[in-house]
Amino acid sequence: MQRLTVNGDRLWNSIMETARFGGTPGGGVTRLPLSDADREVRDWLAAECRALDLSVSVDDMGNMFALRKGREGSLPPISFGSHLDTQAGGGKFDGVLGVLAGLEAMRILREQDVVTEAPLELINWTAEEGCRFPPLLGSGVFVGAYKRDWAYGSKDPDGIGFIDELERIGYRGSESVSGHKLGAYFELHIEQGPILEMEDKVIGVVIGARGQLWYDAVVTGLQGHAGTTPMAMRRDPMVTFSRVVDQAFRLARDYEPEGLATIGHVEVLPNSRNVIPGSVKFTIDLRHSNKPLLHKMDEEMMTRVRKIAADSVTMVDFKRFWLVEPMEFDARCASAVRDSAEALGYSRMDIVTGPGHDAVQASKFTPTAMIFIPCKGGVSHNESESVKPEDATAGANVLLNAVLTCAGR
Amino acid sequence: MQRLTVNGDRLWNSIMETARFGGTPGGGVTRLPLSDADREVRDWLAAECRALDLSVSVDDMGNMFALRKGREGSLPPISFGSHLDTQAGGGKFDGVLGVLAGLEAMRILREQDVVTEAPLELINWTAEEGCRFPPLLGSGVFVGAYKRDWAYGSKDPDGIGFIDELERIGYRGSESVSGHKLGAYFELHIEQGPILEMEDKVIGVVIGARGQLWYDAVVTGLQGHAGTTPMAMRRDPMVTFSRVVDQAFRLARDYEPEGLATIGHVEVLPNSRNVIPGSVKFTIDLRHSNKPLLHKMDEEMMTRVRKIAADSVTMVDFKRFWLVEPMEFDARCASAVRDSAEALGYSRMDIVTGPGHDAVQASKFTPTAMIFIPCKGGVSHNESESVKPEDATAGANVLLNAVLTCAGR
Repeated sequence: MQRLTVNGDRLWNSIMETARFGGTPGGGVTRLPLSDADREVRDWLAAECRALDLSVSVDDMGNMFALRKGREGSLPPISFGSHLDTQAGGGKFDGVLGVLAGLEAMRILREQDVVTEAPLELINWTAEEGCRFPPLLGSGVFVGAYKRDWAYGSKDPDGIGFIDELERIGYRGSESVSGHKLGAYFELHIEQGPILEMEDKVIGVVIGARGQLWYDAVVTGLQGHAGTTPMAMRRDPMVTFSRVVDQAFRLARDYEPEGLATIGHVEVLPNSRNVIPGSVKFTIDLRHSNKPLLHKMDEEMMTRVRKIAADSVTMVDFKRFWLVEPMEFDARCASAVRDSAEALGYSRMDIVTGPGHDAVQASKFTPTAMIFIPCKGGVSHNESESVKPEDATAGANVLLNAVLTCAGR
Repeated sequence: MQRLTVNGDRLWNSIMETARFGGTPGGGVTRLPLSDADREVRDWLAAECRALDLSVSVDDMGNMFALRKGREGSLPPISFGSHLDTQAGGGKFDGVLGVLAGLEAMRILREQDVVTEAPLELINWTAEEGCRFPPLLGSGVFVGAYKRDWAYGSKDPDGIGFIDELERIGYRGSESVSGHKLGAYFELHIEQGPILEMEDKVIGVVIGARGQLWYDAVVTGLQGHAGTTPMAMRRDPMVTFSRVVDQAFRLARDYEPEGLATIGHVEVLPNSRNVIPGSVKFTIDLRHSNKPLLHKMDEEMMTRVRKIAADSVTMVDFKRFWLVEPMEFDARCASAVRDSAEALGYSRMDIVTGPGHDAVQASKFTPTAMIFIPCKGGVSHNESESVKPEDATAGANVLLNAVLTCAGR
């Protein structure tokens, strides 16, 4: 059977077209969830979908669905998509690629008069980015991971409520989010990491997601003048902090290459050049793709910190407050991705995702897989986020063919 | 000869009285240089001095002088004092003690009808605290360490100019700051460190000041998602930062007990829990009381950082931008302090000062010494700054007697 392929130029043009909504002078996009720019891109998507005679609906979480009939109306739709919101000062591709590759798939199927057995459904999930409200809200509520009213009650840093913004932009839909059945879910996304580029592969067959451990730490010592207290008499939280950081990095190196450690947030009080800090507050983020090893990292981290605290004259408050278990995507869906890449002649490798994605939520609800393409330098959540047009096309082609495999022609 | 002593209760009451000017609900004082509260306390001091028939003058840096005639009018005055400005949320004693102990000395000399050979002069220096304008401005310009016009041109964080504020509060005096001669300068101050308390001594004979090295560091890496890049492929500035911090602390421990290291300021960008930082900016403050050893610390610090940078995949910008050489106070003035403490029966020890003081500026110009008394827990620049009344009295007594030794009776 001849493989269907998308119109890569049209896909690229659509990406550039939507980049206008919230476009920044630096060439990126600031399109926060439920902002005016989010409404504009949603309106644009709805119009494009209606132009393809797709049936557009919106649920009461603002998730957008564009349904294309199949021969077998009783089958649940094979779905695909991602999100159109972005970080502040984000790029043009994170999320957007998945939605617009899905739109391009719908366009090419219409042009080629292809009718699938199962219906197809393009999804734009609400509030994937956690930059304004908690992340993965739309997909999370859809699959039942979060309560709708919890999402409604969440507020942005300015105290503005999710539900108020959802209504303000006119995207509190009539359909209940409690959700319709999906036959499967596919999501194309940029890798947001450097591995595909380093390994010189075009397609990442995402077989699972890394688990993660989030810790909050506060080390409290005794604030003082930098020029007086002898070292042996100090209770300097910076000393303790640097020991914990050192151990976190050592721990990750003990679990290479899957073990990761990031100290991304540090707050020193009073943060003055010639004052011994009174306290240092910081976070640790540990990751691993293997569940028993992730738990072993957790245990070891706690043990190492306890030992540092016991040897220290400072007070160490160290808490794990968030655990996401590693997960595996559906093997059959992943095979459909792998086989499509193979048939289309793209270089590929199996990969796990570090970032959370709507697909990770969807996988709790329906067989799911993801497709990654490289992004330059692995850089994402950044205006300089960059993708090769031919890679975007390749990703969209793999998405189209994986979906067709599942939906049946 | 019978030793003269001050009226400790009156001194204490004066301290509490001035604490009203800029007093905070937490029991501290916020009396920023050239603020309204600074004007109020200056007006209060001038009135108290005039009531003692002292001749009050103000120079064009706002430094206040209260002169008491001696038998020998041709001798330069033996001077003493400190500053009445405070940090934001500072305490009741830092600076204030030195000025008010000097005032109390003037009071008791008048009550006891003591006339000294040399004239005496109480000084309240302008803008000692560096919380609004650069520190030690009044004394620094007086001794010629800084240019007057440079001080005039300095601006506070809100962009308000020093000279404008000086004029606004009415303390741009008519006398030229280029200065009159001083025969000697004594300054009583709280230690702002824990040593006297730990060693259970009432009087610190300050024989010198620690030198200091200030470094600015920026480590630049590659910002990225915490969940993607394997450790070996990261260019994480936090790793480099933690190595430099570790080496700074080790270096100080190699030079114990005089070697000190403080990392007081850290700025992580973008400072987000699940983002590998793009850069970490931080400061290092190293101190030592011995000049060759301070320079050796400087050399070693640079060597260690160069080595870390060479082994690192991040960019390390590390600069020493400030060097204050260690200094020794005048041996004869220090002896006068030591002998007075001895004669008055106070426990004492020689000590060096870490913080900068007006006395460190004055010592460039005239024979100088300082007297320290303990403060609770070594805590200063804090509302909870605390001093025992009997220690304040002891300090004032030592000041009075050291001054009398130098001035001659």
